[in-house]
Amino acid sequence: MATVRIPIERRFSDLDLLGHVNNVVYYDYLQESRLRLLRSLGRETVVSAPLVVAHQEIDYIAPLPGGIEPVIVETWIERIGSSSFTVAAIVWDSDGTLAARASTVMVFFDPDTGKAVPMTDQARAWLVAGLHTPDEGASSQG
Amino acid sequence: MATVRIPIERRFSDLDLLGHVNNVVYYDYLQESRLRLLRSLGRETVVSAPLVVAHQEIDYIAPLPGGIEPVIVETWIERIGSSSFTVAAIVWDSDGTLAARASTVMVFFDPDTGKAVPMTDQARAWLVAGLHTPDEGASSQG
Amino acid sequence: MATVRIPIERRFSDLDLLGHVNNVVYYDYLQESRLRLLRSLGRETVVSAPLVVAHQEIDYIAPLPGGIEPVIVETWIERIGSSSFTVAAIVWDSDGTLAARASTVMVFFDPDTGKAVPMTDQARAWLVAGLHTPDEGASSQG
Amino acid sequence: MATVRIPIERRFSDLDLLGHVNNVVYYDYLQESRLRLLRSLGRETVVSAPLVVAHQEIDYIAPLPGGIEPVIVETWIERIGSSSFTVAAIVWDSDGTLAARASTVMVFFDPDTGKAVPMTDQARAWLVAGLHTPDEGASSQG
Repeated sequence: MATVRIPIERRFSDLDLLGHVNNVVYYDYLQESRLRLLRSLGRETVVSAPLVVAHQEIDYIAPLPGGIEPVIVETWIERIGSSSFTVAAIVWDSDGTLAARASTVMVFFDPDTGKAVPMTDQARAWLVAGLHTPDEGASSQG
Repeated sequence: MATVRIPIERRFSDLDLLGHVNNVVYYDYLQESRLRLLRSLGRETVVSAPLVVAHQEIDYIAPLPGGIEPVIVETWIERIGSSSFTVAAIVWDSDGTLAARASTVMVFFDPDTGKAVPMTDQARAWLVAGLHTPDEGASSQG
Repeated sequence: MATVRIPIERRFSDLDLLGHVNNVVYYDYLQESRLRLLRSLGRETVVSAPLVVAHQEIDYIAPLPGGIEPVIVETWIERIGSSSFTVAAIVWDSDGTLAARASTVMVFFDPDTGKAVPMTDQARAWLVAGLHTPDEGASSQG
Repeated sequence: MATVRIPIERRFSDLDLLGHVNNVVYYDYLQESRLRLLRSLGRETVVSAPLVVAHQEIDYIAPLPGGIEPVIVETWIERIGSSSFTVAAIVWDSDGTLAARASTVMVFFDPDTGKAVPMTDQARAWLVAGLHTPDEGASSQG
């Protein structure tokens, strides 16, 4: 699948006293885009264990000033494991400046034990629909 | 140096609809504890280029529910490079539960060029005062 | 002038543990819509003293759940005084439900003394352009 | 009863690009202090309908800069009606500067109908315990 480009409106309250989107707020943009990506793949129809964020990392590349035009978060599923998957994201300013690269590992877990559980076949099929490999001709990275 | 343990009060607004501190808010706790660590080392007296977050990563280990007692962020300088340094942090719930581990790379940069610049000797001395190695007998990791 | 209808995207992080937009976040929506209203009137070309919020009040009428469609903040200048003006706002859910009514008093002030100062003629003309009276036939409330 | 003075720690993320606690964040401080006031009165033991914020207003008197010492929110129950009550609050900077005055009307409501419902006798007794009148010799304002 192609990547999904999700516009996120900046708010005045996203800016810190340097006039830039504060580094913490990038994670809010990532969360918002991740939820929209998963929803666009039809999350509400998927029977699965609940999901939680297990690991996240980000490289900040250029500051994001305030702006009227939305930030664009380009996002996709980049890896599908047995009980986890990785969502990749690139944050672009509205003028095309590369602002950040991030990846987030989500895990299916059992709320009673707090332990990871294997994903259902249905959940896997749901995620496969959003899988994107940088080289379109390459095989799945799963 | 020993690590520094910084209490951070939870707010109701930190909780998401699952009743846990939202994963985004952990970065606010990290930012707050990082600023307090650097301030405790005497930041305002240090002549240096401005600092920016260049990379950050976190492992979420256990959810943080709401609570009256503060979260404890244990934090320290774990690496000092030529133009960057790494702040490590462990987030503990008030009952001693390990909630997350994180590391944040900060870079001194030239605001005109946006490029990293070597830290001053004074900045290095400032950071060395907060350097902690897990094995006290070990040499500096810088 | 007619009122201005400003769409504001809800974020997952706007929701509290009841699954509703938290009462605090309404003020963020008001701030965002107020800034966009003033910008749409051409704020950056106005020579004036800085502005600060002096008073704000809100009536919460119906809860706002999460939603994909944006909240609509209908907003306008409803009063122009000598050194202050009032911005009125109605917050609508995307389905047309009336969620809240609010008014915000903004004051021009002298940053050196912290005291209110009379607005310039240019600032007055700027605000008059956004003045809306509920009864179109009525005279200005200023 | 006397008023309750609740310390709230400022966070770097509370500051906007003017270096002041953003006007929106005051409501977060109010929410936090209100919840702590009600909890200090023993909320968890009170059998009552759920509570919602119905009206809120604030007068901003002086800006709050960032600071290491906490803001103090002095708060009390100032009015008890049949289905609603009013929480008053004064926001003080740590040096004693008066920053804002606010009042918040809370309503007991029926979640099925969304309508206000009379408070239980137990809820009334709970609130009476936190009632404060500015003139100690005066009768209740209820």
